[in-house]
Amino acid sequence: MSQNSLETMFRPKSVAILGASTNENKIGGRPVRYLKHYEFDGPIYPINPNYPEVQGLKAYKSILDVAGGVDLALIALPTAAVLQAIRECAEKGVKAVVIFSSGFAETGDEGREAQLEMRRIADQAGMRIVGPNCMGIAAFDHNMMITFGVSMMNLPPVLGPVSIVSQSGAFGSVAYAEARGRHLGVRLWATTGNESDVSVADCLNYYVEDAETKVILMYFEASRDGAKLMAGLAAAKKARKPVVAMKVGSSDVGAEAALSHTNSLAGSDSVVDTVLAKYNAYRAYTMDEFFDIGYAFTSGLFPAGNRVGIVTISGGVGILMSDYAVKLGLDVARMPETAQAKIKEIIPFAGTRNPVDVTGQAVNQQEILEHCLNIMIEEGAYDVIVVYFAGMTSMEFLLKTGLTRVREKHPTASIILSITMDEEAWKVFDDLNFLVIPDPTRAVRAAAALMRMGQGYAKAERPAPPPLSAPVAPAEMPNEVEAKRLLAKAGVPAVDERLATAADEAGISATEIGFPVAMKLVSTDILHKSEIGGVLLNVADEAAARDGYDILIERAKMAQPDAKVDGVVVAPMISGGVETILGVKVDPTFGPVVLFGLGGIFVELLGDVTQRLAPFGVEEAHEMMREVKGFPLLDGARGAAPADVDALAEALSRLSVFAHENADRIQSIDINPFLVLPKGRGAFAVDALIVPSR
Amino acid sequence: MSQNSLETMFRPKSVAILGASTNENKIGGRPVRYLKHYEFDGPIYPINPNYPEVQGLKAYKSILDVAGGVDLALIALPTAAVLQAIRECAEKGVKAVVIFSSGFAETGDEGREAQLEMRRIADQAGMRIVGPNCMGIAAFDHNMMITFGVSMMNLPPVLGPVSIVSQSGAFGSVAYAEARGRHLGVRLWATTGNESDVSVADCLNYYVEDAETKVILMYFEASRDGAKLMAGLAAAKKARKPVVAMKVGSSDVGAEAALSHTNSLAGSDSVVDTVLAKYNAYRAYTMDEFFDIGYAFTSGLFPAGNRVGIVTISGGVGILMSDYAVKLGLDVARMPETAQAKIKEIIPFAGTRNPVDVTGQAVNQQEILEHCLNIMIEEGAYDVIVVYFAGMTSMEFLLKTGLTRVREKHPTASIILSITMDEEAWKVFDDLNFLVIPDPTRAVRAAAALMRMGQGYAKAERPAPPPLSAPVAPAEMPNEVEAKRLLAKAGVPAVDERLATAADEAGISATEIGFPVAMKLVSTDILHKSEIGGVLLNVADEAAARDGYDILIERAKMAQPDAKVDGVVVAPMISGGVETILGVKVDPTFGPVVLFGLGGIFVELLGDVTQRLAPFGVEEAHEMMREVKGFPLLDGARGAAPADVDALAEALSRLSVFAHENADRIQSIDINPFLVLPKGRGAFAVDALIVPSR
Repeated sequence: MSQNSLETMFRPKSVAILGASTNENKIGGRPVRYLKHYEFDGPIYPINPNYPEVQGLKAYKSILDVAGGVDLALIALPTAAVLQAIRECAEKGVKAVVIFSSGFAETGDEGREAQLEMRRIADQAGMRIVGPNCMGIAAFDHNMMITFGVSMMNLPPVLGPVSIVSQSGAFGSVAYAEARGRHLGVRLWATTGNESDVSVADCLNYYVEDAETKVILMYFEASRDGAKLMAGLAAAKKARKPVVAMKVGSSDVGAEAALSHTNSLAGSDSVVDTVLAKYNAYRAYTMDEFFDIGYAFTSGLFPAGNRVGIVTISGGVGILMSDYAVKLGLDVARMPETAQAKIKEIIPFAGTRNPVDVTGQAVNQQEILEHCLNIMIEEGAYDVIVVYFAGMTSMEFLLKTGLTRVREKHPTASIILSITMDEEAWKVFDDLNFLVIPDPTRAVRAAAALMRMGQGYAKAERPAPPPLSAPVAPAEMPNEVEAKRLLAKAGVPAVDERLATAADEAGISATEIGFPVAMKLVSTDILHKSEIGGVLLNVADEAAARDGYDILIERAKMAQPDAKVDGVVVAPMISGGVETILGVKVDPTFGPVVLFGLGGIFVELLGDVTQRLAPFGVEEAHEMMREVKGFPLLDGARGAAPADVDALAEALSRLSVFAHENADRIQSIDINPFLVLPKGRGAFAVDALIVPSR
Repeated sequence: MSQNSLETMFRPKSVAILGASTNENKIGGRPVRYLKHYEFDGPIYPINPNYPEVQGLKAYKSILDVAGGVDLALIALPTAAVLQAIRECAEKGVKAVVIFSSGFAETGDEGREAQLEMRRIADQAGMRIVGPNCMGIAAFDHNMMITFGVSMMNLPPVLGPVSIVSQSGAFGSVAYAEARGRHLGVRLWATTGNESDVSVADCLNYYVEDAETKVILMYFEASRDGAKLMAGLAAAKKARKPVVAMKVGSSDVGAEAALSHTNSLAGSDSVVDTVLAKYNAYRAYTMDEFFDIGYAFTSGLFPAGNRVGIVTISGGVGILMSDYAVKLGLDVARMPETAQAKIKEIIPFAGTRNPVDVTGQAVNQQEILEHCLNIMIEEGAYDVIVVYFAGMTSMEFLLKTGLTRVREKHPTASIILSITMDEEAWKVFDDLNFLVIPDPTRAVRAAAALMRMGQGYAKAERPAPPPLSAPVAPAEMPNEVEAKRLLAKAGVPAVDERLATAADEAGISATEIGFPVAMKLVSTDILHKSEIGGVLLNVADEAAARDGYDILIERAKMAQPDAKVDGVVVAPMISGGVETILGVKVDPTFGPVVLFGLGGIFVELLGDVTQRLAPFGVEEAHEMMREVKGFPLLDGARGAAPADVDALAEALSRLSVFAHENADRIQSIDINPFLVLPKGRGAFAVDALIVPSR
């Protein structure tokens, strides 16, 4: 289905309500009430065989009885009646249906089958489906509210730059109410429920194209179409439309509840992080964060730096804010001495370094704030300035502070007012594009978010890595030697090793390599080779190598008589270097992800790994390395020689290309250890495992 | 001064205001206005030589002109007039003075001297001082408000179980306003400013003794009297009066601002954590956290477990809450099958595992919540249950849910309502001891805090470790061998080593120990011995040991001719074992702290250490070990033999006793490495450094 068809869904010219109720508080009654109350500009057709009229509107026995065309139909009927209703909508030529009814895929096999059937009917008719098991959609610019949520009646909509999409209906309803309570004007709103057809990703893509939508709030539990979600995120990034995402189900218990909730596969949580980070989307973890950050993003000012200026009337709160800013990685940069001197002239007892403490005096002499702010903006080179003025709620006072003149002088300065103020004052300052976040630490968090987005937008597009001369991963699991050869062809170097299939051959290979050597059984059937004595280290001469071959083959037979043994690999003993781990996991939703970590305790005890979506180039690989805590070990910590990080970066990038080009053939790859030698001496895989997809 | 004298300060029978203003909005006018407005029950004496009357009250030219006694005097005068005013107060026999005036220790040496002088005058007269540079004090149960903060006029006090103390005046004022805006009734309130006399610690101690104070909110930037603060925290813990502490200045920039703000020494931040943890005080980092947790603690219910039950009308929000609970370390434990079945009977489509999703149906059938909650309380064994019902603000609705009956049936169940409700409804549910925290993730955080406090209170008092037969740390820095001997006497075993002062002696010692041996220069003047070749490893026989001695002495002479060399230490070469680091730091405020970490990268790259106040016993030491990320290495991770953790625990405990008993003689101790051998084989110091106090 083309994206455009969502246009008719969000902006229908006519609406029918199947299951329209005469009781305006029932699920089938509320949408009729809302459409009437908010004066939807088009015909509303209640469908109800039992009444000639519903809430003052002429009612129809069937949608097929409606004379004119119907763009959008709502189905608010008992589960058993839904499929027949959809058939009638299809026959009528309806463009989109919204289905409130539950009892489909979320209940088991039978419901899942019925849901597939509704999709088949709709697809044949070229009709879109929202739901089932959803709470509807709304386009507030169009006075179109097809929902049974009570909040839209209790809190009349205020049109604004934010569009919301939520997989969960209840969360969507909560989100609308919270947004309204927090000065967030909403434009488009959708809940997608079971996502028989229209998904969170579809709505995201539509919102990006909607010119008046400036910020997108997105809640999801699982995404079945990772490619579409990523396309939407990429488009949002390109359009500089910030996305604040709440993805729940990160904990095991959460994931379990998510499963029972929408019956979808919860993607691995860390991959979601990786995806959101790649496309510069902001992931929120609490309600306050979701809405605070969404609100902050409406300012449209995303400075690409890291410097925060803080001005307060309370030294104590200033320190609290500084502490928190530093914790969030911001630079509470000191004011230049000249600027400090200027502030001292205005108010001798002020703290001037940053935080600037203008003291309670600024309450008596309101012009102090204006002067100090101008000095901070002009000389402090701050990316965002946060102004803490406690509960100075009087409008009169706020206007006297000269904040309006500051804005005239500095129209694009990013300024957050951490000041409690009433609705009227808020409106004045909102119009001047000051952000108002009364809580001081939450204001600092918003400043950090603005800068993080700015940094993401400012980052230059990195060139795609060159493609492979295409080594293809085999359908069967390759043995260790084959896996390393394949990876080496793909640009991930392996240790110089030989596969011997006879004792004499082992002796010759060992001699060629040079003593001492290591020898290891090669068998895809034997997983833990060292446990059965399948590895020999420091083999000193040719005779020992020949003997070693026989010993290893014998041990394999003893331990696992039916194991297929491909031979014995002979490799040089290497000392020094830093052990790392490279990995690939093909996520069912988002595709191949490349992992990097340092070997040993870093991965095992600390879980100290980082990951990226494949493919990526060497700059990205260098960035990854620097994200792990153990990076100093590669960088020559503890007196060691700096490791060959260029070789490591090249290998990571090439592995990502291999994973990308073989995404449908592999399930996972482990290269462990991948040994990185001192600078100039390269890096190579010592062991490797490629698991083909099933 | 005795603690009791704060009683007259908070509950004076009469008050004088020096600098009382006829303008009720001036700093010297507001306290007169507040005392009158809130009907302080006692004589109010405005002191102002220029007016016969101030705000309708008879004014006096001098406090000495007042006929009756004066318990409390406020000084709101220019800096230059303060000392004379204090002298007059002393002469008058005033019990306590509150000084708003600034311009003292925070401004430099001259101000510091004046501040010391005011303290001398007060001490001689047995008079307490609050401030200078503070915003005053209040006892709302006594209608006594000596402050110029505007919030106490804008927001009339509501008496409640919370007492607040803040070093920062402005923060104290903000805290009062925030508490009022968040349903937190306040009882006592104090700001301590420069703390010439009365400190945050004094007020803490007083609040603990105040029977009606149930929760203490404490803000501080630095504490100069760690012992008194710890005594207060210990008393609060014993009385089960929870303390929520905000200590700012944790970041470098924050600490810098703190210095300029109150001119006090900011203690090391991690020691503050250690102190607060020891006494089961809760440290908050944001305003929301400070007040949310303070509010939650007013419930007085501190379950000692870890199980949280979640019931919602939105599956999505339930998952969000679960995710967050797991992140905070809570157990979102599954409901028993039988209980799940009972809920399914009531509402077939409910999610029943936990989170329990009663769906929007519970809005139509209000009794559902009552039944589900009863089942969860009776069969789920949850320590705290959080109920998310979104914006169901109607009082009528809330009463219909049967929450009142749930409370009757389960008077001590800890239940948090994450429900937006108006003042009237809040009052009803507050009286029933339900906590109301509308934001769902903040409600979960409060649940976690209640349980953390409960666990702290439930922890059995651990016996104090036995004292030492008192080895005393020397005044001069001991050399490595002396340091280890001293520590060994204190119960921290050292490697079996000999100090040789001649080549022959080195040979004999090495033979006694058994080859191979390690040899190292002993000199307190040479700090980095391996850098000058001052360490020899794997010395194989007696001749080599004799030669080794001469080589080391020669190298010392070459590198640092004037260094005092005490000889060469001969020790066995040891392989295996886990390298750990034991340390002592004597904090100037809080005394000796013992640090523990694993050697190598854990400390260097990861800063993976933990610490405790000295002294402590072996149970505490065992707990410490388990707090570091590298603990599995001691516990036999990666196939190694489990280490002798009992020997390690004993050494840590004995080190803590040594540090405690020598707190005034030492500045720090490093035992690095402290080698822990496999179980049963002990643990010992390989190197040690004791730095005496200056």
